[in-house]
Amino acid sequence: MSNIIPENSLTEARLPRGFVDRTGASWRSTAAMLKIITDVYTQYGFEPLETPVFEYTDALGKFLPDSDRPNEGVFSLQDEDEQWMSLRYDLTAPLARFFAENFEKLPKPYRSFRYGPVFRNEKPGPGRFRQFIQCDADIVGTGKIEADAEICLMAADIMVRLGLKSDEFRVNYNHRKLLDGVLEKAAISSAEQRLTTMRAIDKLDRVGLEGVEQLLMAGRKDITGDFTKGAGLIATQASVILQFLQTDASDAAVALAQLEVQFDGVNIALEAINELRIFAASVAHNKNVVFAPTVVRGLEYYTGPVFEAELTFETVNEKGEKARFGSVGGGGRYDGLVSRFRAEPAPATGFSVGVSRLQAALEALGRLQDPAPLGPVVIMVLDKERMKDYFQMAAELRAAGVKAEVYLGESGMKAQVKYADRRNSPCVIMEGSNEKVQGEVQVKDLIEGAIIAQSIKDNAEYRSSRPAQEAVKRGDMVAYVKALVARYEGAN
Amino acid sequence: MSNIIPENSLTEARLPRGFVDRTGASWRSTAAMLKIITDVYTQYGFEPLETPVFEYTDALGKFLPDSDRPNEGVFSLQDEDEQWMSLRYDLTAPLARFFAENFEKLPKPYRSFRYGPVFRNEKPGPGRFRQFIQCDADIVGTGKIEADAEICLMAADIMVRLGLKSDEFRVNYNHRKLLDGVLEKAAISSAEQRLTTMRAIDKLDRVGLEGVEQLLMAGRKDITGDFTKGAGLIATQASVILQFLQTDASDAAVALAQLEVQFDGVNIALEAINELRIFAASVAHNKNVVFAPTVVRGLEYYTGPVFEAELTFETVNEKGEKARFGSVGGGGRYDGLVSRFRAEPAPATGFSVGVSRLQAALEALGRLQDPAPLGPVVIMVLDKERMKDYFQMAAELRAAGVKAEVYLGESGMKAQVKYADRRNSPCVIMEGSNEKVQGEVQVKDLIEGAIIAQSIKDNAEYRSSRPAQEAVKRGDMVAYVKALVARYEGAN
Repeated sequence: MSNIIPENSLTEARLPRGFVDRTGASWRSTAAMLKIITDVYTQYGFEPLETPVFEYTDALGKFLPDSDRPNEGVFSLQDEDEQWMSLRYDLTAPLARFFAENFEKLPKPYRSFRYGPVFRNEKPGPGRFRQFIQCDADIVGTGKIEADAEICLMAADIMVRLGLKSDEFRVNYNHRKLLDGVLEKAAISSAEQRLTTMRAIDKLDRVGLEGVEQLLMAGRKDITGDFTKGAGLIATQASVILQFLQTDASDAAVALAQLEVQFDGVNIALEAINELRIFAASVAHNKNVVFAPTVVRGLEYYTGPVFEAELTFETVNEKGEKARFGSVGGGGRYDGLVSRFRAEPAPATGFSVGVSRLQAALEALGRLQDPAPLGPVVIMVLDKERMKDYFQMAAELRAAGVKAEVYLGESGMKAQVKYADRRNSPCVIMEGSNEKVQGEVQVKDLIEGAIIAQSIKDNAEYRSSRPAQEAVKRGDMVAYVKALVARYEGAN
Repeated sequence: MSNIIPENSLTEARLPRGFVDRTGASWRSTAAMLKIITDVYTQYGFEPLETPVFEYTDALGKFLPDSDRPNEGVFSLQDEDEQWMSLRYDLTAPLARFFAENFEKLPKPYRSFRYGPVFRNEKPGPGRFRQFIQCDADIVGTGKIEADAEICLMAADIMVRLGLKSDEFRVNYNHRKLLDGVLEKAAISSAEQRLTTMRAIDKLDRVGLEGVEQLLMAGRKDITGDFTKGAGLIATQASVILQFLQTDASDAAVALAQLEVQFDGVNIALEAINELRIFAASVAHNKNVVFAPTVVRGLEYYTGPVFEAELTFETVNEKGEKARFGSVGGGGRYDGLVSRFRAEPAPATGFSVGVSRLQAALEALGRLQDPAPLGPVVIMVLDKERMKDYFQMAAELRAAGVKAEVYLGESGMKAQVKYADRRNSPCVIMEGSNEKVQGEVQVKDLIEGAIIAQSIKDNAEYRSSRPAQEAVKRGDMVAYVKALVARYEGAN
């Protein structure tokens, strides 16, 4: 039994794999991003909704625990009454449950945004966590294709508001039924072949047209020699797919006219093309929202338009390799999700931002700065009997809107300054017995001090010159420190 | 097996017991409260920390799953490698793990704040949930009693910032070792008797001095006739407790001087009294932070000062009964928690705000108003072919900072206005073919409209008068609507 702790031994302080702590600058950046994203959602008329992390497993739907492996894909456990509960793996399944449960009370269409942790009981890897944040917006209760288009425009707005330039991202859209039309025209009917074909299309970016052709037919050997078995299509079938993949989509209206000819008689594709025309007209004024007929997303799930936000620039990763961030969010129309609970149709569409991925990209671009990098002003303890005076100083600074604290450790002056440095404090305040008598405090500017220290080689010289330290009248302390902090905050 | 869904049947949309959804005004109020609380924490020099909801069960400590009931008190499950993981039941145990794991890297004392959901696998009841939010601040790595005092001052600041008046709350403090001294002086050594004695002291508010006396001795029968077995103390033991409970604590310095005489020779109590003197001096300027020798909190857990924020006013509950909210937060010194992981001592103290309880209290007082009660401006769809024009209007309003959306349902005009009403929209905008030709839009003020509607009895008169509806030049629409919204937002 792994859960018995031997007597007299220390417990190891560690987290289960795939889970992380977040703190300081990273935490504040996430909070700042969520603020921007939800501000945009709010501007578009979406209302906040928060559901608990637990749902009944049957209400989550997609993953059902079986007796052998109750945790396949999701974290599940049995409640006291033996019913299975699971931790949500996304924010859409709980929305479908909420909408069905509160159908009578909600205004329809129902526009909501949600954010919070979601959980995947999967093997963690670099950048792949078992708990991560999603931030979604959905419209439930309308089949109008303009709703999908508006969500893509909103996604593009979010990217701009987060600091991305218009040549750094795209919101790609496609239609699930167009892909169904492609499969129909190529006469691919076996479920397995359909899936393998879609996977091959999805790899176009990475393996090129020739690679897709191999994956559609016998299979493909990559540069490492690994072989991927193909879909086993015959040449006439593959050529339907390959012709479709060569669609020039740079002008959506032109591309849709061509596709209409190409798919003459394939009703499901023509239905998609009609909807895509409405979509394209609705987004025509935004050059960042583009038709991308090769985009494939969750075929089992989406029933209409699908879309994804994609970053288009390259960065250099830790290993010095060029890498593209790729998709930082996606969504689409899922008309079937609510109908698991209700007989009435409840068409729905939505978008989910991959917050951590997007944050990593913005950090790599240097667009995401710590919104509050300065730590508190630290009031040093020179005389342990005078804590009350020091707390009084802290109270005055806080009342003036300055973050401040009294040093509460038990170490000497050197350690206190080092503590303030580690807290990224703009300055420390010292009031010893001499200063007290003279009605003064010493304010040491740690930021300027650090700059001066770099230029002074001689240790003795450094100490005697007391760089960046100033005697300030006690009555002027708050104004002086406030100005000092404002100067550095303005510099950020 | 409860997890098999019969074919062709609908899944019931419901949540497991003890979990709730939160939306709209309630969600926004919580967010506004958390912003105020964490702003105060930040002013006091605390840094954000977020830990995942999962921890290894052995790292959480307090509750260990056993083979019979792996979910006693906490939600637990086994990871793939058979190790037990649990959902955190508070935010302190994860902090202890984090501090121990990152000991070398952290500035010490380490001041952090955390908020987020915690989980209790307990029987839910009215106002008792299995998932709820805590919002904590802790200082780890200092044994200084001033740290405890500062945390109480901060708790009082938070109450004021949240809108409580100084006669509506108190932050009570006590010392765990003073209570140990009471038990020692009364010569109560059996663990069971000590616990029952503490429970009796904790009930002073509800049962009075006589009730406590009964609970200390043979037992007490309440008004319903239910009998609670007592601690079985003899009269001389009980009198020590009763004398202590009658301490007049209205002046902390006087009370501590009396207790010093009362507990002469009881070293652990004298130690507590010395620390309480420092505490009392540090908080003397704040009349809301008061010495309360009868406060008992988590005796197994706290090792020094303990404190709790208490609301002192009465409200009327849903049943029309007078009720006090009582404790809305608490904390204390817990020097033992980190030492489970590390041999070095890591004394710590902290405070946890009971966010939901406090929110309920502020709502009852009418102090907590929805910070954004107005919904979006709704642009009605009078002509389905002109969606693009309507989206253009929404885009212009959003760019001017006005929440706006195009109606995306498929219903007629009456239903569209009803939708806008349910969204709490300040106004709807209508542009039919007549308006389009005249270069105008109709703006219907729903808030003024509702007021007028109440005073007009006659339905025909109401409709013909078109109350609160105005024709506005299309070019003036944004400025007109912006002013209208600002007028109502200012009124909140």
